[in-house]
Amino acid sequence: MIPYNKLTKIPYGGDYNPEQWPEEIWEEDMRLFKLAGIDIVTLNVFSWAALQPDETTYDFSKLDKIMELVKKNGLKVCMATSTGAHPAWMARKYPDVLRTDFQARKRKFGGRHNSCPSSPTYEKYSVALAEKLAERYKEYDNIVAWHISNEYGGECYCENCEKQFRVWLQKRYKSIDKLNEAWNTAFWGHTLYDWDDAVLPDSRTEFFEDTFVMAQGIAVDYDRFMSDAIMQMYIREYDAIKKIIPDAVITTNLMGFYKRLNYFEWAKHMDFISWDNYPAVGDTYAKTAMAHDLMRGIKNGEPFALMEQTPSVTNWHTYCALKRPGVMRLWSYQAVAHGADTVMFFQMRRSIGSCEKYHGAVIDHAGHENTRVFREISALGKELEKIGPEIFGLKTKSDIALMMDWENWWAIEYSAGPSQELRYLKEFGRFYETLRNMNYNVDIVSPDMDLSSYKLVIAPLLYMVKYDDDENIRNYVKNGGNFVTTFFSGIVQENDLVITGGYPGRLRDILGIWVEEQDALPNGEKNQFIYHGKEYPAELLCDLLHLEGAKQIDEGGYQKDFYAGMPVLTKNNFGEGAAYYVATASNEAFYREFIGSLCGEMGIEPVLDVPEGIEVTSRENDKKQLIFIMNHNDAETVIHLPMSGKDLITGEEYADGEMVLEAKGVRVLKIEK
Amino acid sequence: MIPYNKLTKIPYGGDYNPEQWPEEIWEEDMRLFKLAGIDIVTLNVFSWAALQPDETTYDFSKLDKIMELVKKNGLKVCMATSTGAHPAWMARKYPDVLRTDFQARKRKFGGRHNSCPSSPTYEKYSVALAEKLAERYKEYDNIVAWHISNEYGGECYCENCEKQFRVWLQKRYKSIDKLNEAWNTAFWGHTLYDWDDAVLPDSRTEFFEDTFVMAQGIAVDYDRFMSDAIMQMYIREYDAIKKIIPDAVITTNLMGFYKRLNYFEWAKHMDFISWDNYPAVGDTYAKTAMAHDLMRGIKNGEPFALMEQTPSVTNWHTYCALKRPGVMRLWSYQAVAHGADTVMFFQMRRSIGSCEKYHGAVIDHAGHENTRVFREISALGKELEKIGPEIFGLKTKSDIALMMDWENWWAIEYSAGPSQELRYLKEFGRFYETLRNMNYNVDIVSPDMDLSSYKLVIAPLLYMVKYDDDENIRNYVKNGGNFVTTFFSGIVQENDLVITGGYPGRLRDILGIWVEEQDALPNGEKNQFIYHGKEYPAELLCDLLHLEGAKQIDEGGYQKDFYAGMPVLTKNNFGEGAAYYVATASNEAFYREFIGSLCGEMGIEPVLDVPEGIEVTSRENDKKQLIFIMNHNDAETVIHLPMSGKDLITGEEYADGEMVLEAKGVRVLKIEK
Amino acid sequence: MIPYNKLTKIPYGGDYNPEQWPEEIWEEDMRLFKLAGIDIVTLNVFSWAALQPDETTYDFSKLDKIMELVKKNGLKVCMATSTGAHPAWMARKYPDVLRTDFQARKRKFGGRHNSCPSSPTYEKYSVALAEKLAERYKEYDNIVAWHISNEYGGECYCENCEKQFRVWLQKRYKSIDKLNEAWNTAFWGHTLYDWDDAVLPDSRTEFFEDTFVMAQGIAVDYDRFMSDAIMQMYIREYDAIKKIIPDAVITTNLMGFYKRLNYFEWAKHMDFISWDNYPAVGDTYAKTAMAHDLMRGIKNGEPFALMEQTPSVTNWHTYCALKRPGVMRLWSYQAVAHGADTVMFFQMRRSIGSCEKYHGAVIDHAGHENTRVFREISALGKELEKIGPEIFGLKTKSDIALMMDWENWWAIEYSAGPSQELRYLKEFGRFYETLRNMNYNVDIVSPDMDLSSYKLVIAPLLYMVKYDDDENIRNYVKNGGNFVTTFFSGIVQENDLVITGGYPGRLRDILGIWVEEQDALPNGEKNQFIYHGKEYPAELLCDLLHLEGAKQIDEGGYQKDFYAGMPVLTKNNFGEGAAYYVATASNEAFYREFIGSLCGEMGIEPVLDVPEGIEVTSRENDKKQLIFIMNHNDAETVIHLPMSGKDLITGEEYADGEMVLEAKGVRVLKIEK
Repeated sequence: MIPYNKLTKIPYGGDYNPEQWPEEIWEEDMRLFKLAGIDIVTLNVFSWAALQPDETTYDFSKLDKIMELVKKNGLKVCMATSTGAHPAWMARKYPDVLRTDFQARKRKFGGRHNSCPSSPTYEKYSVALAEKLAERYKEYDNIVAWHISNEYGGECYCENCEKQFRVWLQKRYKSIDKLNEAWNTAFWGHTLYDWDDAVLPDSRTEFFEDTFVMAQGIAVDYDRFMSDAIMQMYIREYDAIKKIIPDAVITTNLMGFYKRLNYFEWAKHMDFISWDNYPAVGDTYAKTAMAHDLMRGIKNGEPFALMEQTPSVTNWHTYCALKRPGVMRLWSYQAVAHGADTVMFFQMRRSIGSCEKYHGAVIDHAGHENTRVFREISALGKELEKIGPEIFGLKTKSDIALMMDWENWWAIEYSAGPSQELRYLKEFGRFYETLRNMNYNVDIVSPDMDLSSYKLVIAPLLYMVKYDDDENIRNYVKNGGNFVTTFFSGIVQENDLVITGGYPGRLRDILGIWVEEQDALPNGEKNQFIYHGKEYPAELLCDLLHLEGAKQIDEGGYQKDFYAGMPVLTKNNFGEGAAYYVATASNEAFYREFIGSLCGEMGIEPVLDVPEGIEVTSRENDKKQLIFIMNHNDAETVIHLPMSGKDLITGEEYADGEMVLEAKGVRVLKIEK
Repeated sequence: MIPYNKLTKIPYGGDYNPEQWPEEIWEEDMRLFKLAGIDIVTLNVFSWAALQPDETTYDFSKLDKIMELVKKNGLKVCMATSTGAHPAWMARKYPDVLRTDFQARKRKFGGRHNSCPSSPTYEKYSVALAEKLAERYKEYDNIVAWHISNEYGGECYCENCEKQFRVWLQKRYKSIDKLNEAWNTAFWGHTLYDWDDAVLPDSRTEFFEDTFVMAQGIAVDYDRFMSDAIMQMYIREYDAIKKIIPDAVITTNLMGFYKRLNYFEWAKHMDFISWDNYPAVGDTYAKTAMAHDLMRGIKNGEPFALMEQTPSVTNWHTYCALKRPGVMRLWSYQAVAHGADTVMFFQMRRSIGSCEKYHGAVIDHAGHENTRVFREISALGKELEKIGPEIFGLKTKSDIALMMDWENWWAIEYSAGPSQELRYLKEFGRFYETLRNMNYNVDIVSPDMDLSSYKLVIAPLLYMVKYDDDENIRNYVKNGGNFVTTFFSGIVQENDLVITGGYPGRLRDILGIWVEEQDALPNGEKNQFIYHGKEYPAELLCDLLHLEGAKQIDEGGYQKDFYAGMPVLTKNNFGEGAAYYVATASNEAFYREFIGSLCGEMGIEPVLDVPEGIEVTSRENDKKQLIFIMNHNDAETVIHLPMSGKDLITGEEYADGEMVLEAKGVRVLKIEK
Repeated sequence: MIPYNKLTKIPYGGDYNPEQWPEEIWEEDMRLFKLAGIDIVTLNVFSWAALQPDETTYDFSKLDKIMELVKKNGLKVCMATSTGAHPAWMARKYPDVLRTDFQARKRKFGGRHNSCPSSPTYEKYSVALAEKLAERYKEYDNIVAWHISNEYGGECYCENCEKQFRVWLQKRYKSIDKLNEAWNTAFWGHTLYDWDDAVLPDSRTEFFEDTFVMAQGIAVDYDRFMSDAIMQMYIREYDAIKKIIPDAVITTNLMGFYKRLNYFEWAKHMDFISWDNYPAVGDTYAKTAMAHDLMRGIKNGEPFALMEQTPSVTNWHTYCALKRPGVMRLWSYQAVAHGADTVMFFQMRRSIGSCEKYHGAVIDHAGHENTRVFREISALGKELEKIGPEIFGLKTKSDIALMMDWENWWAIEYSAGPSQELRYLKEFGRFYETLRNMNYNVDIVSPDMDLSSYKLVIAPLLYMVKYDDDENIRNYVKNGGNFVTTFFSGIVQENDLVITGGYPGRLRDILGIWVEEQDALPNGEKNQFIYHGKEYPAELLCDLLHLEGAKQIDEGGYQKDFYAGMPVLTKNNFGEGAAYYVATASNEAFYREFIGSLCGEMGIEPVLDVPEGIEVTSRENDKKQLIFIMNHNDAETVIHLPMSGKDLITGEEYADGEMVLEAKGVRVLKIEK
């Protein structure tokens, strides 16, 4: 949990790398932080090379100075362990620390995210460093959190990883026979006789043209293994710190919808979630909201830390457009509106060399406070001081859950057929963005989480139904839940093996349908269907289904082709609840109508009913509810407020009636319960 | 030849892999096969891993059971040798069995088509397995054919292949001087001093940006070598089986226009041709027909086996659309119409894991007979039973041959200049599709085949004229043949060395022209020419030619640019015959007019004159002619039938006059001679 | 300097490789050369394999014969050293001679540009060969120039190069601390402890997805090193020849705007510049002119040699369109108009095999003189004989310089942010092409050259301001010069480290502005600004700038967005001169208006004022001026001639008044001073 005991207001600050600068400017930094209302810094993110110049030497003298400096200046510290990039000497002397890429190229020293998760050398020295840091700085009570490594990611295909993969497989499958079965190796005569026959899937083995995989089960298992192996890097340091500081609060900064790492698993080992929010130019605000909700969802709805965002501009997008005036503030509040209890930036001072020098910072290359960006930062700093701890720990309450599953994501995008256009996040996003644009609070849950508190659970494209996931869904519906899923769901179990007997496999009884075939529509081709009197397009994939107890709720089924008349939308009463099936992909208008109707029937209300471009969410506890109202439009927008409340930012009281929101404006209405 | 002595009707069945399933379902398979009219199964395609778990152990117990099962159930067997994918232990212990890819990456275990053609290990064990299978199953008289390996293909760039390449070069060129001459190594100082100086062409040597080759002669020779080397894999097993079963009938399944392997050479070593037909979504029916005609053509017009097709859907295309109702039947008859004497599927039962699990099958994942696809399969099964052996051995009679040459294909697509848009099959297809759409029977021949039976021989883009190919053409025309070729033909000999003195080189006297230059037209740019009073576009490449005895048969030559007025179409009377030249690429309307006129002059008739979308072919022998009439349209179409005959499928008699063909409908009219 | 002492007219000829042909045709070649007016041949370009069949054997017998042949036929010789491609035996026995590519693949024998610049073997044998050639042929006084290797280029990433890179770094940076500072290794903890920690930047180290570099400073240094290392290959042979023939005139053929090699450095080691001109289909004539002007500019305005051009067609472009009639002549004169004193072709006789066989030649595959191309060549040959030495040594006089910098080019295209669309040559070309299209003479200069003779110096996108380059510019402006630069200039110093304190860094005082931020505009998005009453688009990047002494010279600044009103165009009076800033990219109409106005104010005149499509340049000395007038249009065009003169080509006298230029026509007016 975020260490509220050490905080009195929303922490405001970010990554600070004074070790990259001459000491002369440190005091100037302190002056500027004060001006900007900065009260927390993340230190020591990339200092391994400086802290440990060889196997046996450690030098904490500069970090000591920095710690004293920030302490003296009243700054809280998020203490990083520096293990996000290994030192050059380590790569030179112990090449096992280096990764091998998908193309089978052994890498040399360079970049970051560059340490092999199976490297004995890395294990030894990363744990040692974490221990030494914990030991040395354990008495600093301005350290509010520990931040292990940085943006874990990537993958490795080296021999050590292959060996560890075999160990992992042995643990998972126990016998080689079980593994043969799981990977269906009878196909193409891939039978394994020995654990050493298991080879990792890369460009040299099961992939061709570097894109298509020939053995989906192996690829999914390697993704599982790699997510685990990298997670072990984290856990090892976590344990090392906890051993020395039992009440340390520990995190690592995640990256939203990052495909490689199964964050639902990671979250179990993190004291609180923190993440780095970098929307690309052109992203919708709903897409950003979706990532915030995921970061809240992986930890069961706990508030999280916004660990990084740019104050002004990124540097790696194709076009690095500036955040327009007001946008940094708006997006900071958006994070909070979705569950963040911190507002933090990468970075405090802009570096002068290498690939992030054109990434925005609190202190720009100009070096002074007279910049548009600094002025906006300072203004927000003042607001956050005013708000204080009011928001801390408040939670989002939602009647709706969207079910998300990393393993399903991996599997579906490895699938050979029925359409190479199938993209999990696209289908997931169709539902999320519709809900967000209609201003429903939404939780994102994994298939094995407790669903009982939700009135509606939507699982788009739930292709893989793993282990007992179906049982969880079945119980939920039996006990009165409402469940929605889509085409190409329920097809395989956890090893990407088809559940025979008829699609949608383990979901078939719940949904009361049998899907006989799937027809892939080439890009641009459409079928049609009618729902509530209106015609909508059917795209991408059309399931050809038969009712087995469910009833058809569209009007007349597909409008053309040889499967004209077959149902597109079905509803199955199952136990106390109901299960819905959407047999194709459609457009936003359809999802609005469909979800809006369902919510209507189930008595689910949006937080507020407001015009386009206005985002509304709520957070609450026993005593109060906060309503966040955010105007993403470029123009002033008027909304109707059906209640009264006090704006936390300005202190202004609003009665029910009209509320005028300036462009990019934000209100945080507090309503006492 | 297809073993008609063991057959009483068109074999109907396909790949059956019971070893990938529990034995419990085998009986159910038998029940379903019976329902569907299945009478042949291809067994043992990917069982090497099961048959031989290590160097010295062989275990045929499961295959024995399967053989007894299918025998008991009256099924014919096409017996595969299982060598399409080597066992995991072999890759682990004898890495020479693994290939090295174009990027110089030594592959590891995985995939299929994965054995190096120069591997001593593979040679030893593949031959041993073929022998053991032949020895063990030689008494089964329900084995109607042997099927070696599976869909040979791909390529290898390992050191063993490089060494074998040098041996191959020594055999071909005898002396290093001859090789230097053949490869024109004086260019860029590439002189070879020793056979070891010959390096194989890959991303490390003669290719840059992995696409452009710097030494075309080397690249073409490596393609020849690789096609040969892979063919030796086949021949070794072929010989092993024949040694034990002298009257075995042996094939391997080809892949139509597969660029890597020179099937004209392969066909010489195959008892009959079999192939796998997988059109992509959007392919024209003429394109499919072209592949069938090629498969018939490589074996001098002998009927072939349709070894694989999907009953319903493929899994590797971008969009895997379902075969619409009637299409599987229509395309099955199309195969027969072009020379197939079998109708076979991949696969009998849909696998549950790995990359082909979404490929259609006779028995779907649902596992029962109550599917659209199964119903269509059963219906066709009944029809084939009714037709019996009526079609067996009938041949296509054609007045027209299209000349096709793999070595020319390789060479032309390696060419640096004059246009990177030059694609052999595109130019070839322009002529083929026109002929097909006009319902002429067409044979596809190689340049060294006997041409004397044809009234018209067309050789599109015959860039490389090898060895004595020109002499064959010269004699053909001298003796009264009509020969058509196009721009950029006759340029090089077999080593991709230009024939100096004036293009089109060795064809110059036959064509009576001199091509001075070629002008490449950027994509979208066009010139024009007039033929029979109509204007047609000139695209891609415009030859600038001079008449040397030929006469111009277009009206006024190119219509613009500095070569306005230069001839586009020429005709040269040569001996008793005539040779035509088409100096540019144009549109379908032109090819229709041009070919239609030529055929008219030469008294060549289409099989029938019918509306668009109706395909007609014929097969015949001394006693009867069958006319295949196939409606590829989505709507009922009426044709005029100029003769009477009896439909083999329904038994219905048709008098001359109108015939109504339902959408996707087929008639096979039998006309006694 | 071009060896005018040995010449009596513009040398006309090109690459001649008789060693690739049987001796029987050599005499025929001589006959055809005579017919065509050829008087110079470049010999021995790719003969290493023939000259040296092993370590100890040299065989010059064939070259001796060739030298006697061409001498007897009165031909001048440009003598190449043959080291552009090493012999096969060298690759086989001494693999250090082979390169390793960016993908870390050790190459094998093949191609050209294939020798590692750090190979001891290559060094030994290339120098030995150069010496032996110099020794053997030093007495031939028809050798007018020595031509080392051929089209140096490419790059190597082998271990030897990595070691040499470290030596190079030690020389440049002296201490590891200085290197750490230069590379800003504190960022991401990249601290180097030892020279061996410096690794070369390739796909295994600082690049990801093979496109983006993570450490710009390292990448720029490796580019510097590689340009130097390849230059050392040249210098070693240069020195070897000079040792034996002190008055040898030595060059190597460059390639215009070739990114990899810093030709400003190379030029210092070349006796005269020569280059190969191969415009692609669709290139503007101004683009070609820009390359000619660069080739003149790198050697301080000295005339250069056009070493290669195709007489008719290239072979490696996507569409190899023919040079239309007159174009070869027109482009030959264009080269001369921009400073060339030779007209030479690749190649004399078209090769029959390998990748250049479809590249045009004086003697085509047809082998005789009766071709369009040969006729055009002969006609030009006659003209050049008539012109004689009239043009020799005349120089271009220009009031305008465009500043170009290879290191800036490398740096800007490695930049992570603000826009991946930033392309140096595109921005450079906007200014060049405008000036060219308005027919101003333009010099291209490096930032450290003497600028004092120019009225106007334009430095587009001068992102990197190295060493004392700013001081050179500062002095130039102080002393009355006019300097123009653009957005995103002055940002970094020579190590790609940002100059802090405010952009544009070291140029800030000169320009009198502070650039606070840059806004990248996504492709297709535009802002607007007004200049001289007209609205122009602002694209790509918009600098947000503040005046610090400069005055705004556009009208009203940006027309929209939050920086509406901020200046787009500024002028700063600085010392005796003025400095202008263009804060965004715009369209050609703007650059015409802007540059036209500046030139007007500064009294700079175009050579002539003529209609679109007519190119005019001048060359002169104390006694005369030549005005080159070239009609690139496809139609006759009439211009107004404000003076009288005599056409060097025809001898015709032109009075002032109308001059009618036929399509592709050329006049070279001589005006006595």
